[in-house]
Amino acid sequence: MGDAVNGGQSPDCDPKSSRDEHSFGPSDSEDFDFDADRLREECGVFGIFGHPEAAAITALGLHALQHRGQEAAGIVAYDGHRYNSERRLGLVSEHFSKASTIERLPGESAIGHVRYSTMGETILRNVQPLFAELNSGGFAVAHNGNLTNGLTLRRDLVRDGAIYQSTSDTEVILHLVARSRRQRLIDRFIEALRAIEGAYALVALSNKKLIGARDPLGIRPLVLGELDGRYILASETCALDIIGARFVRDIENGEIVVISEEGIESLRPFPPRPMRPCIFEYIYFARPDSIVHGLPVYNVRKAMGAELAREAPIDADVVVPVPDSGVPAAIGYAQFSGVPFELGIIRNHYIGRTFIQPTQSVRELGVRLKHSANRAVVAGKRIVLIDDSIVRGTTSVKIVQMMRDAGAREVHFRISSPPITHPDYYGIDTPERDKLLAATYTLEEMRAYIGCDSLAFLSVDGIYRAMGEKARDPLRPQFTDHCFTGDYPTKLTDVGGETKSQLSLLAEAS
Amino acid sequence: MGDAVNGGQSPDCDPKSSRDEHSFGPSDSEDFDFDADRLREECGVFGIFGHPEAAAITALGLHALQHRGQEAAGIVAYDGHRYNSERRLGLVSEHFSKASTIERLPGESAIGHVRYSTMGETILRNVQPLFAELNSGGFAVAHNGNLTNGLTLRRDLVRDGAIYQSTSDTEVILHLVARSRRQRLIDRFIEALRAIEGAYALVALSNKKLIGARDPLGIRPLVLGELDGRYILASETCALDIIGARFVRDIENGEIVVISEEGIESLRPFPPRPMRPCIFEYIYFARPDSIVHGLPVYNVRKAMGAELAREAPIDADVVVPVPDSGVPAAIGYAQFSGVPFELGIIRNHYIGRTFIQPTQSVRELGVRLKHSANRAVVAGKRIVLIDDSIVRGTTSVKIVQMMRDAGAREVHFRISSPPITHPDYYGIDTPERDKLLAATYTLEEMRAYIGCDSLAFLSVDGIYRAMGEKARDPLRPQFTDHCFTGDYPTKLTDVGGETKSQLSLLAEAS
Amino acid sequence: MGDAVNGGQSPDCDPKSSRDEHSFGPSDSEDFDFDADRLREECGVFGIFGHPEAAAITALGLHALQHRGQEAAGIVAYDGHRYNSERRLGLVSEHFSKASTIERLPGESAIGHVRYSTMGETILRNVQPLFAELNSGGFAVAHNGNLTNGLTLRRDLVRDGAIYQSTSDTEVILHLVARSRRQRLIDRFIEALRAIEGAYALVALSNKKLIGARDPLGIRPLVLGELDGRYILASETCALDIIGARFVRDIENGEIVVISEEGIESLRPFPPRPMRPCIFEYIYFARPDSIVHGLPVYNVRKAMGAELAREAPIDADVVVPVPDSGVPAAIGYAQFSGVPFELGIIRNHYIGRTFIQPTQSVRELGVRLKHSANRAVVAGKRIVLIDDSIVRGTTSVKIVQMMRDAGAREVHFRISSPPITHPDYYGIDTPERDKLLAATYTLEEMRAYIGCDSLAFLSVDGIYRAMGEKARDPLRPQFTDHCFTGDYPTKLTDVGGETKSQLSLLAEAS
Amino acid sequence: MGDAVNGGQSPDCDPKSSRDEHSFGPSDSEDFDFDADRLREECGVFGIFGHPEAAAITALGLHALQHRGQEAAGIVAYDGHRYNSERRLGLVSEHFSKASTIERLPGESAIGHVRYSTMGETILRNVQPLFAELNSGGFAVAHNGNLTNGLTLRRDLVRDGAIYQSTSDTEVILHLVARSRRQRLIDRFIEALRAIEGAYALVALSNKKLIGARDPLGIRPLVLGELDGRYILASETCALDIIGARFVRDIENGEIVVISEEGIESLRPFPPRPMRPCIFEYIYFARPDSIVHGLPVYNVRKAMGAELAREAPIDADVVVPVPDSGVPAAIGYAQFSGVPFELGIIRNHYIGRTFIQPTQSVRELGVRLKHSANRAVVAGKRIVLIDDSIVRGTTSVKIVQMMRDAGAREVHFRISSPPITHPDYYGIDTPERDKLLAATYTLEEMRAYIGCDSLAFLSVDGIYRAMGEKARDPLRPQFTDHCFTGDYPTKLTDVGGETKSQLSLLAEAS
Repeated sequence: MGDAVNGGQSPDCDPKSSRDEHSFGPSDSEDFDFDADRLREECGVFGIFGHPEAAAITALGLHALQHRGQEAAGIVAYDGHRYNSERRLGLVSEHFSKASTIERLPGESAIGHVRYSTMGETILRNVQPLFAELNSGGFAVAHNGNLTNGLTLRRDLVRDGAIYQSTSDTEVILHLVARSRRQRLIDRFIEALRAIEGAYALVALSNKKLIGARDPLGIRPLVLGELDGRYILASETCALDIIGARFVRDIENGEIVVISEEGIESLRPFPPRPMRPCIFEYIYFARPDSIVHGLPVYNVRKAMGAELAREAPIDADVVVPVPDSGVPAAIGYAQFSGVPFELGIIRNHYIGRTFIQPTQSVRELGVRLKHSANRAVVAGKRIVLIDDSIVRGTTSVKIVQMMRDAGAREVHFRISSPPITHPDYYGIDTPERDKLLAATYTLEEMRAYIGCDSLAFLSVDGIYRAMGEKARDPLRPQFTDHCFTGDYPTKLTDVGGETKSQLSLLAEAS
Repeated sequence: MGDAVNGGQSPDCDPKSSRDEHSFGPSDSEDFDFDADRLREECGVFGIFGHPEAAAITALGLHALQHRGQEAAGIVAYDGHRYNSERRLGLVSEHFSKASTIERLPGESAIGHVRYSTMGETILRNVQPLFAELNSGGFAVAHNGNLTNGLTLRRDLVRDGAIYQSTSDTEVILHLVARSRRQRLIDRFIEALRAIEGAYALVALSNKKLIGARDPLGIRPLVLGELDGRYILASETCALDIIGARFVRDIENGEIVVISEEGIESLRPFPPRPMRPCIFEYIYFARPDSIVHGLPVYNVRKAMGAELAREAPIDADVVVPVPDSGVPAAIGYAQFSGVPFELGIIRNHYIGRTFIQPTQSVRELGVRLKHSANRAVVAGKRIVLIDDSIVRGTTSVKIVQMMRDAGAREVHFRISSPPITHPDYYGIDTPERDKLLAATYTLEEMRAYIGCDSLAFLSVDGIYRAMGEKARDPLRPQFTDHCFTGDYPTKLTDVGGETKSQLSLLAEAS
Repeated sequence: MGDAVNGGQSPDCDPKSSRDEHSFGPSDSEDFDFDADRLREECGVFGIFGHPEAAAITALGLHALQHRGQEAAGIVAYDGHRYNSERRLGLVSEHFSKASTIERLPGESAIGHVRYSTMGETILRNVQPLFAELNSGGFAVAHNGNLTNGLTLRRDLVRDGAIYQSTSDTEVILHLVARSRRQRLIDRFIEALRAIEGAYALVALSNKKLIGARDPLGIRPLVLGELDGRYILASETCALDIIGARFVRDIENGEIVVISEEGIESLRPFPPRPMRPCIFEYIYFARPDSIVHGLPVYNVRKAMGAELAREAPIDADVVVPVPDSGVPAAIGYAQFSGVPFELGIIRNHYIGRTFIQPTQSVRELGVRLKHSANRAVVAGKRIVLIDDSIVRGTTSVKIVQMMRDAGAREVHFRISSPPITHPDYYGIDTPERDKLLAATYTLEEMRAYIGCDSLAFLSVDGIYRAMGEKARDPLRPQFTDHCFTGDYPTKLTDVGGETKSQLSLLAEAS
Repeated sequence: MGDAVNGGQSPDCDPKSSRDEHSFGPSDSEDFDFDADRLREECGVFGIFGHPEAAAITALGLHALQHRGQEAAGIVAYDGHRYNSERRLGLVSEHFSKASTIERLPGESAIGHVRYSTMGETILRNVQPLFAELNSGGFAVAHNGNLTNGLTLRRDLVRDGAIYQSTSDTEVILHLVARSRRQRLIDRFIEALRAIEGAYALVALSNKKLIGARDPLGIRPLVLGELDGRYILASETCALDIIGARFVRDIENGEIVVISEEGIESLRPFPPRPMRPCIFEYIYFARPDSIVHGLPVYNVRKAMGAELAREAPIDADVVVPVPDSGVPAAIGYAQFSGVPFELGIIRNHYIGRTFIQPTQSVRELGVRLKHSANRAVVAGKRIVLIDDSIVRGTTSVKIVQMMRDAGAREVHFRISSPPITHPDYYGIDTPERDKLLAATYTLEEMRAYIGCDSLAFLSVDGIYRAMGEKARDPLRPQFTDHCFTGDYPTKLTDVGGETKSQLSLLAEAS
């Protein structure tokens, strides 16, 4: 099953994601999953040093980060003599909950990784952490983000005789480290980081050290925690909470931390630049109980809902969230507006990822496997429907229709973030630009396409206000927000060439 | 794996559920699942007659009824020549979503069943529907409920040479039908029903008919639906909604409906009695979007919360639901009281049923795999915590502690149903009486045990008010409410004897 | 997987084995398995009483009896309180080699069963031993043989309200025991045996006893062994040898042995009749190292080969056995004739049962997955090819062709048993009469069909001589040999009716 | 299961095979597998070019080569655009028989590989063929043999920045090819071959070519075949026979063949040397129906038996082969000596590789799961027991004991090859020298240890005679026979260093 690997692809073949092929109109073959039109991020990372239960702790941390990636998970642990690795397709709780799996991962230091969920097949050899036996000993790396010059670097390295086993951009980093002529491992690692561009939060493990690194702008998040005197690195604070670890601080943009038996050391090999974290962590990716750069995510989302209520009020009977990601904004909207919050859509928790509608005629029933309308709340009502974002708009059409089928008198759709007009190249799986609804349609065209009575998005300044800023600073924007503004914060070396894809997402295509 | 069966037990052995063995104090080995202290019901049933996709429709209906039983699922379909059966441990979506499974179930009539989830092992041969080849042809039955004279009848039948293959009380019904000397199958079925006592909602399938039956008091629910002119039977209306079927009416207490190519016929072989449905469908079992006997469950639960706010108000900062079952009552409480509703506990959706905490020292971290406190909402606040019921109280202790750990200043615990003081014998898996917290402790003892600042339950009359009654009619109670009142509506033949168990729950013990 | 069960069949449907449908001509879809045209027997049985490792011993005994049935295996063990059962599709070594499986079978007494292998699907609920909870306690039965009035009895019992869970004729015996009005279990068992006709070797287990029984003619084999003072019952002596147990004696025809803590008791409830065991145990079924009724099977087979050399000599260069069952007869033929014995056909031991030839064009290559010709031995030679029997003749055609393709100058085919002209009804899976090559064709027609240069079978008297008799006694034949002679030793009650099948083989058809 | 991978090992850890740890005395925990003391070879290879069913043909070829490796199998196919790969632990027939697997391997050229069987765990990432995406396109390699400077080369390459994903020496070849600065792929491949020492038969696949290569001495075998005008490469002729392909010729020692759409080209980049193939192909590895360098293996083995009868005659009653590998030599011995050949040991064909004896007390029964003595042949007889080789001698002890337990009067043990006194470094998994029985013990000590009445080995000249030579030419030995003579035909670069192992066998140890 999962152990089949594609042997690679010939260089002349054109990788193309099968996920991006449908156009705006709702197609027959689409599923009715409300999450089908969300953005997806690639990963969460976790690492711990010096704990006798390193792998078990890492499994728990990854479980808390599961919302960042449901496709696959992996852990590499080092027991002082040997690196052991377990990498699996599926949820953390499916594989890493077993004592037998954890027992195969002895040692006091470990790093782990979760990957995001796709419709299609996946490839085990791309599951991280990746590992290489270097001249200096073993070296494992796990990565959240995407290199914007990954394809270019890969091509150069292959030309020079490097053999790739995965299509992951993380392997680019491994090869750069392996080929560095510097003596010390940390210098080789820094040399590798100097060669790469883009967004990354990295955790790495060597015979003596746990290393964390964040890109010069701090696009992807990484925090430092502490449990009984042992240091932890994790994508979000919720991964510290699950094990009762203490939050120490965010890793800074451009910072490298080196954790060893001697303690923790901070390196800053890059010229200082202002922090510019990804705004989508607040809108969608981070768990509501995480605290990102000092701001509780739940509170920020409620504030987005309240700003939305201020900017786009409407006379209505109930506020209905699109579950589950729309709930905090809906509570914020309801509290600001005074319109009562109600569960107008019920989520079925017992759905696996794989309920295939068995026959054509059953499919035509318009079956809703994951969600159902709560008619008692919706029928005859004017509803304000709250969601966090619109990507292609395909599921928005269905949610609005579901509300109307349940008897809603009016459906006012409110989105607690601005229109997405530009694709991402930093590890978020966005469709190409012409598939983004807001990139092509006017607001009124969008409303008509979705079929709601009114439609409003939160403004860019509104979302900055929800995060405690007065407004977006156009000269030095406080966040990475190119999906709304087109203002990309780094060079996009690979995009210039013939391939438009992010290397970190190619796995699915090859 | 699932195909191992225990061969049965000797009559002298003492079946005892391993689930009921811990006492009040929170034990080390307990898991941190908030749902661990819920009541559990045995089943949901579904049947359809005359539809070319009978098995696929049944799979979807069972998926919508999955909350009534997560342990196992089964479907029997009849293709005019042969009965085919698929019975599996696990969720409907794990097995019955596959085209290959559905293809093994050809035919235009089918019935299905879901069973509830337990911690322990389960037995495939008890998974329903059960089937027998009678003299008159095949006969399949699926059952929700429990016979209060099932053990007694079973003993008599074994003495007379009957061979049981399961420990299910449903098989008692099969044997009674098989041994009836009446001519027509429906007469044999009625003769069997006359012999049994207790609670049941049954669907049965013969070569020519789909049959539904509800016990004389209508304790367990059963509804009639219609899709493109074909009749459907289901435990709840949400199973009609998922396939776009129309709700026709509730099956009445004591009614038998016979669906065939000639249409639908209604039989009433019992003396008329007033309806007395189980009150727990409204409190916990039914899905919030179902409508039970004309009352939308979501609205009833909100009304319970509002009644609770009226009966037990408190000066507080936030209303926090215990997810997910406490949410509607918490919304009701918040709306009535004006105290804001907030998600103070975050649920991790990616947990399977099997995350085992791998080592002792990790277990001692007090890891919360399924839920985490949302500190931003809880810290420094006086919170009203809303749950739907307390059984043993073991998880209540942990939830309150989790709130305090997250910095709650005060925790006021409010329960949207009355104290549970008596066990059930009609298919709900309650612990024995001395394990029920409210059966042994006073209100103040309960508060002290749970560790909250104040504790209040909804009154019995309060819950009747939430369901639209003025109060409980002590002479002719409108609902089956013995868990709160000790007023059992039927004879309890088996309970008199040496075995205190419900036959329908013995499967897990044997 | 294995836990899917067919729910049964409607009474009006006509069960028919899909195995018997092709006619004489070699068809495209046939596989190239030399064993495809062998007779198959249903089962082997094993039981042990009073041994602390009862289930483990039984697993080993069944492994030694695996040649009697490769489709499925089961063990029931009794631990003084409870009967535990494990029944699995597949080989004994696949499932019952695991410590975890054996640990689920605690207790000091156990019985087990292996079933034969078929092409088609199989049904777990038919896997033996079968078990019933009787009024007097648990009762498990395993059966080798076939009841010639099983269908008739089954029909009567169903009419009387019995519910069948399998299609096995063993369940008929269980129901007869369950319904007997006698007091003692052993009397109920004897009453059941008095009602049945046909061939059977039974082992049964109750709370206090291990019981063995053999039909009045002793058609199917059963031996008594002893290990460290504990009694064992098994189909063949090789099941004693594997565990180092001592052979005590054959169970006699019509004998019932009752093994308990008091020791062993022998009952003979039937009028005495002369023994008449099945001749096919010697020809094909029994393992060559077993000793059946005092005769070593290997020696008998060599003697058949020698008799064949005497009856049908030929001038040739090499004697080539069809592996593996033709080897002993070929050695006997070679030693008697002086023609050298050579391995002209090589068997590939690494074949599973499931190598499906993936595509049409590959299939047309005439691939031989299981056997290959050893050209160095065959090319240019006159070969005597030795096999033990011909059923349909379909694989004989291929074997001869394989020899010719490898360059054989002449192929003289010699069969070490007489022509099979009549079907069996005692548990051997023979095709219907018109599919038996020798029932329809003359010797010369057979030779022409098979394509060999000469063809000869051993005579009926020849086979009796190989077994130490002077000749067949036509008045009181010493063996059950109806397949060669048409002389059926019992009534064939079921055959008179509309169904020609053996109940014990119906499993595959329903 | 199989998809777990060990991440590698730190350079300071000492790899040691757990297989080699027991000393001469038969230990309790040893299994009773007669094959446990055989030599094992690493692999078989297969390749085909230009056939529309390339992968299916390759699967069949690998099935025929299954005796060369039962641990794992893999196929890489190229469809003109993409290389697809399936690599699995287990038998070819378990995975590659499925149409679904073959369908994932489209294309007209394919290579495949089988690996040998071990007791312990194995590592999927070592399963061949290995693949690399080179600058020039994809490149896949499968290898039978072992590089005697593999570890040394690997160390050099890692020092230079190469990242290894497996511990296979085949990956050394891949890296050498990847790093070559030559232009044409075939020149890069030749440059790689010039760097390596040892034994190899290689098949490789590029976008345009199928390549075969044999080491300068031709130690490991490789043959060229042809099917409908398409060329095939395979380890043995039996892989041609299974698909009806024609044997063209052996690939010569030091020859490289390049098969493309233009036809076949032969390159000889090494200085010419006399052929010196491995003698063990004749003794044990090759299938009896294969023809190796013009000699039918079956005939050679019979001739070894005949030579043995000439060199070491004995007065006896029966010749008994140790199945299955001793059978041809036993036939040869019997024919030469006139002592009758008999099956004194019966093999149970239904054993999987995993029958674990479940409990200590059962283990002490001395259970024989795979073989049983045929008492009827052995009891009271003087037997000549024929085996093909003795490695550690551990199973010889048991076989002789089994014969004595079955009543053998005398046991004369005859081995159809000379004493093994030296380990192999060319891909045969021999124990270290001090574990080889004949390296430490005299003939009489061996006889006493094994417990037979007499013991004799075939002489070195005797085995050369069986292969048609007059005697061994001490100046230019005709075969690679160092295991008997200590005369290693190549440099042993790796052996000089701290590690004594063969890199190709390290997989199991890491």
